[in-house]
Amino acid sequence: MIYIIGIGAGSSDLITLKALDTIEKLDILVGSKRSIESIKSIDSINSNDLNNKEIIYLSKNLKETLKEIAFDDKFKNKDIGILSTGDPCFSGLLKTMINLGVDKKDISVISGISSIQVACARLKISWDDYAILTLHGKEHNQELLYNMVINNHSVIFLPSDIKKDIEYMLNKNNVSFNLKNVDYHLKDVRITICENLSYPNEKISTYKLGELLKNIENGLEFSYMAVCIITF
Amino acid sequence: MIYIIGIGAGSSDLITLKALDTIEKLDILVGSKRSIESIKSIDSINSNDLNNKEIIYLSKNLKETLKEIAFDDKFKNKDIGILSTGDPCFSGLLKTMINLGVDKKDISVISGISSIQVACARLKISWDDYAILTLHGKEHNQELLYNMVINNHSVIFLPSDIKKDIEYMLNKNNVSFNLKNVDYHLKDVRITICENLSYPNEKISTYKLGELLKNIENGLEFSYMAVCIITF
Ligand SMILES: C[S@@+](CC[C@H](N)C(=O)[O-])C[C@H]1O[C@@H](n2cnc3c(N)ncnc32)[C@H](O)[C@@H]1O
Ligand SMILES: C[S@@+](CC[C@H](N)C(=O)[O-])C[C@H]1O[C@@H](n2cnc3c(N)ncnc32)[C@H](O)[C@@H]1O
Repeated sequence: MIYIIGIGAGSSDLITLKALDTIEKLDILVGSKRSIESIKSIDSINSNDLNNKEIIYLSKNLKETLKEIAFDDKFKNKDIGILSTGDPCFSGLLKTMINLGVDKKDISVISGISSIQVACARLKISWDDYAILTLHGKEHNQELLYNMVINNHSVIFLPSDIKKDIEYMLNKNNVSFNLKNVDYHLKDVRITICENLSYPNEKISTYKLGELLKNIENGLEFSYMAVCIITF
Repeated sequence: MIYIIGIGAGSSDLITLKALDTIEKLDILVGSKRSIESIKSIDSINSNDLNNKEIIYLSKNLKETLKEIAFDDKFKNKDIGILSTGDPCFSGLLKTMINLGVDKKDISVISGISSIQVACARLKISWDDYAILTLHGKEHNQELLYNMVINNHSVIFLPSDIKKDIEYMLNKNNVSFNLKNVDYHLKDVRITICENLSYPNEKISTYKLGELLKNIENGLEFSYMAVCIITF
């Protein structure tokens, strides 16, 4: 069985007991250097237990390695766990595996805390009040994001490239809208950017879209680990 | 500080280490009988630790008790943890607290695994491919659900009352749509219902909407713990 194990979007204590129990019984543990190290840093993990497992590191070879694990005979009948940051079911490794043609019956998924949820916990907002989008590998969602905002629908999104995502919206022909009988320009809409959630360098900042774009043009940079929120 | 602590939507091993650490340092633990018992059943929880805390049970008096905890002087300067099933930020206790007028600065939220995520893990689908709705206390979302389905947008939703939610859709004037050049009737759309996720009596079943409504009229019943999924 291939276990796709969500370990949470950031600090190692976001992991569930179910994920830890699953890791304990594996023959082979697969993950990025960062996620393997995150697991090793957990006090309640028995390090003997980890030392007895084969560990396979994922890096640039991601897809090839995952394919081998899924289809190569030498991995048959083994319990293999693939560590996935956040929730494997949100813009995560589950989709990668399905797209590689792995049969759903050969997979078991262990849920993890998503970056979307940590962002909501920090801002104390409820994600049932928001549309949730990822632009990560889904650039066509830029248009959907624009439509949400212009129609005053609150939205949480994982950016593809913050600068390009905002330029896309501000370069549209129609950049004004009416909310409660007041006319607004898209550039005055506020966006909150949550970087490196649950890490020591976590940072949360809010800008107007127009101001943000100018700041980026003047050199402001963001972590690639960022969740963006627009609230109406 | 008031900690709103997500304990996951179901079995007690869905809890995170962060939630357990937070529970350990509390003065007062607040929760439904079911959630307090779920915590007590966890091996790694030190029962001495729990016995030293004041425990307040939530039941029908939910809002009054939460209000007292938030505003009564005797709770000032205490570390109080309120257990919330699933993720407190999805149709959960965070919103209840905010609606009671509690100041965001007095709250800290610990994310938990939502029933939406467990449903996705079971069906091996990604929630970034779905719209997510709760009809639970938001009956006006029935119209939104109908619009999603009629426009072939995949959706995951928490039902308010499965029978009424489906009747609402099937009683509309327009109940046909065209997908890839084929005409469909709403009653032939498939819905998957995930009941009691992660509990021993977990059950996942799929019906056509029309057939489901007939079955319900003939006495078929569902758990109030249910997540519904419609995939296009
Ligand atoms: C491939 S997606 C994986 C998402 C992951 N499965 C989840 O549920 O959060 C990677 C993106 O998630 C977001 N992300 C993941 N961890 C984050 C964190 N700790 N803080 C902010 N954003 C994060 C960033 O937008 C990052 O580019
Ligand atoms: C008030 S809402 C709370 C949702 C919770 N905060 C979450 O994140 O899952 C309660 C609804 O969640 C769904 N739910 C919660 N736990 C569930 C489970 N174990 N299986 C199926 N549905 C569940 C049901 O629709 C239930 O009526």
